Amino acid sequence: MISGGSWTRTETDELGSRKLPGDALYGINTLRAAENFPVSGMQIEALQPLIHAMALTKKAAAMANHRLGKLSARKAEVIGRVCDELMAGQHATQFIVDVFQGGGGTSSHMNMNEVIANRGLELMGHVCGQYEHLHPVRDVNRSQSTTDVHATALRIALMQAAPHLEAAVRDLADAFAAKGQEFAGILKLARTHLQDAVPMTLGEEFTAFASALRQEGARIWPASQALAGLNLGGTMVGSGLTAQPEFADAVIAELQRLTELPLSRAEDLVSAAWSTADLVQFSGMLRGVALTMSKIASDLRLLSCGPRGGLGEILLPAVQHGSPVVEGKMNPVIPEMINQVAIHVAGADASVGMAAQAGQLQRNPFEPLIAHCLLTGIGMITNAARILARRCVDGIRPDPSACAAHLSDPHTLIAGLTTMVGPEIAAAIASSVAAGMALDEAMRHYGLGPFTSVTDNT
Amino acid sequence: MISGGSWTRTETDELGSRKLPGDALYGINTLRAAENFPVSGMQIEALQPLIHAMALTKKAAAMANHRLGKLSARKAEVIGRVCDELMAGQHATQFIVDVFQGGGGTSSHMNMNEVIANRGLELMGHVCGQYEHLHPVRDVNRSQSTTDVHATALRIALMQAAPHLEAAVRDLADAFAAKGQEFAGILKLARTHLQDAVPMTLGEEFTAFASALRQEGARIWPASQALAGLNLGGTMVGSGLTAQPEFADAVIAELQRLTELPLSRAEDLVSAAWSTADLVQFSGMLRGVALTMSKIASDLRLLSCGPRGGLGEILLPAVQHGSPVVEGKMNPVIPEMINQVAIHVAGADASVGMAAQAGQLQRNPFEPLIAHCLLTGIGMITNAARILARRCVDGIRPDPSACAAHLSDPHTLIAGLTTMVGPEIAAAIASSVAAGMALDEAMRHYGLGPFTSVTDNT
Amino acid sequence: MISGGSWTRTETDELGSRKLPGDALYGINTLRAAENFPVSGMQIEALQPLIHAMALTKKAAAMANHRLGKLSARKAEVIGRVCDELMAGQHATQFIVDVFQGGGGTSSHMNMNEVIANRGLELMGHVCGQYEHLHPVRDVNRSQSTTDVHATALRIALMQAAPHLEAAVRDLADAFAAKGQEFAGILKLARTHLQDAVPMTLGEEFTAFASALRQEGARIWPASQALAGLNLGGTMVGSGLTAQPEFADAVIAELQRLTELPLSRAEDLVSAAWSTADLVQFSGMLRGVALTMSKIASDLRLLSCGPRGGLGEILLPAVQHGSPVVEGKMNPVIPEMINQVAIHVAGADASVGMAAQAGQLQRNPFEPLIAHCLLTGIGMITNAARILARRCVDGIRPDPSACAAHLSDPHTLIAGLTTMVGPEIAAAIASSVAAGMALDEAMRHYGLGPFTSVTDNT
Amino acid sequence: MISGGSWTRTETDELGSRKLPGDALYGINTLRAAENFPVSGMQIEALQPLIHAMALTKKAAAMANHRLGKLSARKAEVIGRVCDELMAGQHATQFIVDVFQGGGGTSSHMNMNEVIANRGLELMGHVCGQYEHLHPVRDVNRSQSTTDVHATALRIALMQAAPHLEAAVRDLADAFAAKGQEFAGILKLARTHLQDAVPMTLGEEFTAFASALRQEGARIWPASQALAGLNLGGTMVGSGLTAQPEFADAVIAELQRLTELPLSRAEDLVSAAWSTADLVQFSGMLRGVALTMSKIASDLRLLSCGPRGGLGEILLPAVQHGSPVVEGKMNPVIPEMINQVAIHVAGADASVGMAAQAGQLQRNPFEPLIAHCLLTGIGMITNAARILARRCVDGIRPDPSACAAHLSDPHTLIAGLTTMVGPEIAAAIASSVAAGMALDEAMRHYGLGPFTSVTDNT
Repeated sequence: MISGGSWTRTETDELGSRKLPGDALYGINTLRAAENFPVSGMQIEALQPLIHAMALTKKAAAMANHRLGKLSARKAEVIGRVCDELMAGQHATQFIVDVFQGGGGTSSHMNMNEVIANRGLELMGHVCGQYEHLHPVRDVNRSQSTTDVHATALRIALMQAAPHLEAAVRDLADAFAAKGQEFAGILKLARTHLQDAVPMTLGEEFTAFASALRQEGARIWPASQALAGLNLGGTMVGSGLTAQPEFADAVIAELQRLTELPLSRAEDLVSAAWSTADLVQFSGMLRGVALTMSKIASDLRLLSCGPRGGLGEILLPAVQHGSPVVEGKMNPVIPEMINQVAIHVAGADASVGMAAQAGQLQRNPFEPLIAHCLLTGIGMITNAARILARRCVDGIRPDPSACAAHLSDPHTLIAGLTTMVGPEIAAAIASSVAAGMALDEAMRHYGLGPFTSVTDNT
Repeated sequence: MISGGSWTRTETDELGSRKLPGDALYGINTLRAAENFPVSGMQIEALQPLIHAMALTKKAAAMANHRLGKLSARKAEVIGRVCDELMAGQHATQFIVDVFQGGGGTSSHMNMNEVIANRGLELMGHVCGQYEHLHPVRDVNRSQSTTDVHATALRIALMQAAPHLEAAVRDLADAFAAKGQEFAGILKLARTHLQDAVPMTLGEEFTAFASALRQEGARIWPASQALAGLNLGGTMVGSGLTAQPEFADAVIAELQRLTELPLSRAEDLVSAAWSTADLVQFSGMLRGVALTMSKIASDLRLLSCGPRGGLGEILLPAVQHGSPVVEGKMNPVIPEMINQVAIHVAGADASVGMAAQAGQLQRNPFEPLIAHCLLTGIGMITNAARILARRCVDGIRPDPSACAAHLSDPHTLIAGLTTMVGPEIAAAIASSVAAGMALDEAMRHYGLGPFTSVTDNT
Repeated sequence: MISGGSWTRTETDELGSRKLPGDALYGINTLRAAENFPVSGMQIEALQPLIHAMALTKKAAAMANHRLGKLSARKAEVIGRVCDELMAGQHATQFIVDVFQGGGGTSSHMNMNEVIANRGLELMGHVCGQYEHLHPVRDVNRSQSTTDVHATALRIALMQAAPHLEAAVRDLADAFAAKGQEFAGILKLARTHLQDAVPMTLGEEFTAFASALRQEGARIWPASQALAGLNLGGTMVGSGLTAQPEFADAVIAELQRLTELPLSRAEDLVSAAWSTADLVQFSGMLRGVALTMSKIASDLRLLSCGPRGGLGEILLPAVQHGSPVVEGKMNPVIPEMINQVAIHVAGADASVGMAAQAGQLQRNPFEPLIAHCLLTGIGMITNAARILARRCVDGIRPDPSACAAHLSDPHTLIAGLTTMVGPEIAAAIASSVAAGMALDEAMRHYGLGPFTSVTDNT
Repeated sequence: MISGGSWTRTETDELGSRKLPGDALYGINTLRAAENFPVSGMQIEALQPLIHAMALTKKAAAMANHRLGKLSARKAEVIGRVCDELMAGQHATQFIVDVFQGGGGTSSHMNMNEVIANRGLELMGHVCGQYEHLHPVRDVNRSQSTTDVHATALRIALMQAAPHLEAAVRDLADAFAAKGQEFAGILKLARTHLQDAVPMTLGEEFTAFASALRQEGARIWPASQALAGLNLGGTMVGSGLTAQPEFADAVIAELQRLTELPLSRAEDLVSAAWSTADLVQFSGMLRGVALTMSKIASDLRLLSCGPRGGLGEILLPAVQHGSPVVEGKMNPVIPEMINQVAIHVAGADASVGMAAQAGQLQRNPFEPLIAHCLLTGIGMITNAARILARRCVDGIRPDPSACAAHLSDPHTLIAGLTTMVGPEIAAAIASSVAAGMALDEAMRHYGLGPFTSVTDNT
């Protein structure tokens, strides 16, 4: 069929017939969904990890169906090849449904089913739309429903993203730990309530950043493992309707093989069909990681406040010009970005909670929003951690003289040193400092080498 | 300069020199920012209303500077032409900075300044980068700073978006009101606590949706007017540093003329430089509008629960196939989309509050996040309201027999009718219904025409 | 009836009979509710403004019922007297239902109805429980339902609390404004992104706090007026069931007279029965006020960071010892309290939004939670504002030498002064300061009297 | 000293002298704090678990100090006796500081120190205020600071509360599981997107509630164990200032012994001094538990919607009269309470996140707010779970005929039964039902005994 010089094809569903571009890999379900949800302008193409995991799930399902005798070798092979293409990022522009869609992900899912079918038809030498040779529902979606495919793909996508986040957070922790060692000898003022407290070292301060981030890093994999119970095979409401009883185990075995993740079948497929509780917990974990990064980023901004009129105990590396008005002004733009990412993630976490609570009966129709919040969030935190390490922490320099100057109050100094070295030496050091000697020098003078932290994990 | 077959040019700032694509309209500041913030993958190009309002602000500033003798006619005219192009959507791909940026919008702002300068240079017959003829800072940014330009542009963008939201909400209210009139004669059960309460009409129920939305519609313009106090001319901290004293009034007069908005100069430019309180209030208003839409969307889902196994008092129009598994299943995908938009906006509102509170001293560096939340939110609610009206409400049909069936409890019926028509007629109607007569028929039989609402605004 | 030496009485409802303490003013409905909801340990007695407003509403209803011939003069007079006692704070311990109650406030409402009836019976010379003389439902609740009484009382309570909040916020603004004048001549460093920017005065900084708070103050009354549309007379679902048509206008006229508030009848009683949209908007307003206070409180903490090792530009009054460990340590405990109040209110605001969205059909059963959030919040912000003014702001002292020291960078100084006094004098002052002259002295030396703010609203 | 007939005593601190009631167990620090924070009206007495855990911590510290030779046997024994009294709930009215306090808990902590000292003095035969015999700071607070005592006590309080929550949630799960077995044979309609889907059993639906709650229950103890790393011994900023190096291990050993909890010393005492990350994670866990309960509560409300005009598939037990207007109306007040508790906890969780992120440098001054949110929340969820089990779930009755009626659509029925029993029997059953046979009867007629769930954990 030729229309105005360009090929079109016609597809038909329960609601009637529609023309599509002849070479569109998506089909009528996708077209209707794209028309129904012109909401955010953000298409699911932007959620690449979800596309990837959905393709993976489809490939596993095809292989399981073939093994169970429900799909021909030819069809299974073709579906697998298309899924490989999709996982490699091909055909991304064919995923045109808006992220903010009703229907619990059915539109994303049908977009996937239709793209696989049509691209498969091309590979088989047919023309798009000739579904009698490879059908989006009867073949590509065999033994599956949106309830189990979308939920499964989301969890796999998060489990695949988690190690990247963990690596980024650990790498950031290492960057802080390296600075902690570098700054081990720099005595400075500890502040509680933003008020002068007692002495500590800049090394302790940065090592503590590393410690806090390592604790966050250690939370990520366990939290992601809690997503491993899949409802694939449960189809619509956990009933397994349209799927063989053997399908659940078969398809999860394929997924394990393809992903090398410790996946398993959810214990109760009925609750797995509606429960988003594991996603809520994962969201809370993400928020926590982001907030710890944000607290540290705020400290970096505060410690580098200056250069003249603030604490100025550290200098952040200059990465861009700060102001078109004031020459030479450099702003802590990287930590400020971190704060915003964390605040965004905290807001998204609130949304995840609301979405979870609003689910009803056998399905949570708001899973697309949850997917959007979590996938966007985990990606942004991962990127943000890497940027913070490379474009900020690695280049931080101390200002030891500013550190020492803030300790110059003999009262604070004695209070702090007394516990460390006893009252006599403390008093002697303090009076040397009061007489003008640099703190470091005074410390060394009284036999105190590089300051020793009370912390035992440097 | 030729490099590998493609033109490049070199720009230099305080941090050193960098090569750029020869025809890039952005410059070195933009390049550095793009490299510093590869966070979300969403570039400011996606915030078109902000780009538009920033270009508008730049045009107004150029005109004011010219009028005050600070910018030549030629430069002002060229800047104005470029801004017109940008407002028309041209050169959008040149806005490459990530939405999640530190620096309080400086990177977006410099991206704008550099694009204007380079495109202006092209128009003047020069080559990109020859800033001696038109300078991003000294000319395009004259008398301005990010603090006042970004804040001003954001508020103008919201004020320009507000009437579209208001129109969409009022239009949605009209759609419900039309249904309210259409359904005026359909007696049904009112429910409190999801338990049978007393009779009402379906018309009252839909008219109440219209009333609630009209109240929301009426809040939008007043809330947006609270954004009208601009800090343009205050430059960095409200000091007016680098700007002439006359500049503030001059540029706001230009903005008034260009936008026809009731803009004014903020009373206290110092607090205006850091306060985001008006944005927080606007965000709260947006959330409220979204939540009211969401509550109504949930009611539509509940009232259309069925077709057999639920309340089923209304039928939503079918807009797409609901399930690849169950033939004929239609889901309330449009209302579900509304719920998700509202939940997203509520989460974004939480982020706005956090961002506002986290500001320090003379600037809130988290304005880019606030801008992202508000502009994305207002656009999505506007789109969602239009979709709900056209793709759902307009096509809703009642099921009068289901409505009547739920009223069949004589106890409820008498309780309700007694107040309306007195105890005798109430009892008579109830016994007729108990004897099998349809409720509508029984009502008419006793001389009760189309049910009259106690509400007086139908 | 005597039981173990203490009087008891027996009351009966649809669920059976129960014994109550003989002199309990509450009745069987209250007893059951107290047993059903042992959740938070916080009884509605703690929500005194709601008790007060509910009593007021009951009094107005009794008077309206009497005027319409539905209640005897004697009963109306007795009910009025009891309500006066309750408004005076008497019998508070009789309100024993938990704040976290299901039923949309029915339990609070029945607690009120029963207390009024029983205390009325006492006044009439009867014994508690002899409801044939004064009935909690048939007399005290005549023409009313929980839907309209609870909603009305909540809105009146908020409207009555709003002027106190406004006064407290304006008073706090005045405290800052006084400091703004006191500090008008103290030149200091303005900071954006926590980095040195340009000079400003400490007076400008504090005046800006005042300006921001005055804007908040100005929002409160308009926001509270948006609550003035009452659904009293609409009874259960806005139908007016059990009430005479004239009752709504009559009772609102009484309420206007008793409260001197601009109350009116909601335009659409059906939507008024379920909509909490005005409460959501009010909650957003409260959050905004709290967040502005919190931002300012954070600035006070930052500016007083020290005494030696931080900005130290201001000193907060010492109001309590800061640490059992470090002698002489004083912490900014009042501003820290403010931050926490604001964060609490922001969280409660999130709850209000969730509660509003979760409402279904003709009623929002989560109004008790909304009431708890709003009434607790408005009271806490009011108290917090007064404490901040009296126990912190009034006693703030500047440290002009610290302010001047932070400006000592000649670059910053010239940049700032140039716009203010021209480049020549700016350079001269800067070189004097560089030569050791105090900044103030240098300013005066060049004929610059007390620094003049560019802000025109001091 | 006698004043107006009542004894007073005078205490003095750095800020001056104040009179106190002669028999007040609190002292001048408490008095000042009570005056500084009249904010919420909620005194820390209401946070009994925190008082309890703080007393426990103080007792352990006294014992450790004694063992290390820093406190006499007599003093340690007296402190221990007072702490036992406090743990038994005595002297509760002496804890008069407002929950919303600045200073990071210093005021609560000093209230505790002073009460212990004064009560100890009484036990020793002295008079309140004679601190030379037992000093609130030098004895009771020896080797401690607020930073470590408050943080430690909060974590212990949560770990002690966690098993109660877990037991309540598991008990609630058991209640649902029992109903799941009871309802195993009742075929009903599964709904996705509130639209008719496929058949399931009411037993599966309730068993899924149990499964979801068991998963929540299983999260509680692991989450609470993540709180076990204590910073006691780190004193102010993790430096151990004022404490012996051996103190940390000694006091934690005492705490382990007293609590039988798996407590340990935090790896990095410096980060432990400021990090609230574990509390944020715990808060997220709590929110998740509450939201799952809330989703289920909403389902109970929906499934019991009626009695005539809704799904009506289950009947909740009547626990109180629902409306003063409509006779016989029973509302789902217990599930509605659950929803509100969950929404409250979700809002409090947002506050916890904000408080954590707002911490600065070596201390988070907002720990009192975090404590309030978490302790109030965990208590309320525990109470709510118990109430839901006993006053609602245990008494739920099914309406099998309503369940069957909603399945009457032959299309749905066949679709569902086909997978279960094959197409022929499915069609036969459907036609029998269409011909008027009850579904259960038809099932039995074709040899299908009690419906067998596809779920394997019933």
